[in-house]
Amino acid sequence: MSEDLRMPDAGNPTLRLGSDECWELLAGTTLGRLAVSYRNEPDVIPVNFWAAEKNILLHGSEYVRDIVRRAEHQVVLEADGRSGSSVWSVMAKGTLRELTGPAEIAAVERRKLRPWTLTRRVLYLELEPSELTGRRIAVGPENND
Amino acid sequence: MSEDLRMPDAGNPTLRLGSDECWELLAGTTLGRLAVSYRNEPDVIPVNFWAAEKNILLHGSEYVRDIVRRAEHQVVLEADGRSGSSVWSVMAKGTLRELTGPAEIAAVERRKLRPWTLTRRVLYLELEPSELTGRRIAVGPENND
Repeated sequence: MSEDLRMPDAGNPTLRLGSDECWELLAGTTLGRLAVSYRNEPDVIPVNFWAAEKNILLHGSEYVRDIVRRAEHQVVLEADGRSGSSVWSVMAKGTLRELTGPAEIAAVERRKLRPWTLTRRVLYLELEPSELTGRRIAVGPENND
Repeated sequence: MSEDLRMPDAGNPTLRLGSDECWELLAGTTLGRLAVSYRNEPDVIPVNFWAAEKNILLHGSEYVRDIVRRAEHQVVLEADGRSGSSVWSVMAKGTLRELTGPAEIAAVERRKLRPWTLTRRVLYLELEPSELTGRRIAVGPENND
């Protein structure tokens, strides 16, 4: 985390985050929510992801596969968390690409990513965001311990 | 939490939850993610919500208002959490209604709901789900402490 990190406060409760800080926050967590749109209706599912080198990797179950295969256009991966007296949220918009080549699957498997849950993983997905936005928001005193 | 709660395990890692259990889980948290669709592209934002009596109330900032006012069709509110050796996720789909009548706004204000963040709240929204689904998924041993 940068030393000169600006933090929001009561007078200025919302700060927009720059791209570097968004990547840093994404790299520090593996739980996000993937939102997709299908026939102009949204759907959203929790997913494990791994962010590194301006690229996001997801490891999906059959449930995720069925949802993303019918997804049209762009998807959004959202992650959020708490740090000190603020909460942050990062949204990465882009299109998902399913990894299918044996070489790229082998490269991913060498990373030994550990999804949280025991559901069988059937596909790897890559999200290279075309838009990355983040906000940090001050937490009220009753939630600030 | 019901005494006879079924829990997922390695042999059967995903359990679908019934409506009562979904409501019980929603009532136990106030942080969710609201997914909307606009011109067939998804958007997702963290929101505070309060679930009670088969009804969900959201208290939105200007940022939320701008996103939901342009949202078309249905929205989805997703909440998730961890309990013991499983994680759960509940999705409530429906349409949002903005509360505008002074009597209904006064009734909500008597509930003294406390959003986490300091951003100014400019609207109350009600979501009466037309579809409520939930899953409980077993967590792998390396994430099971």
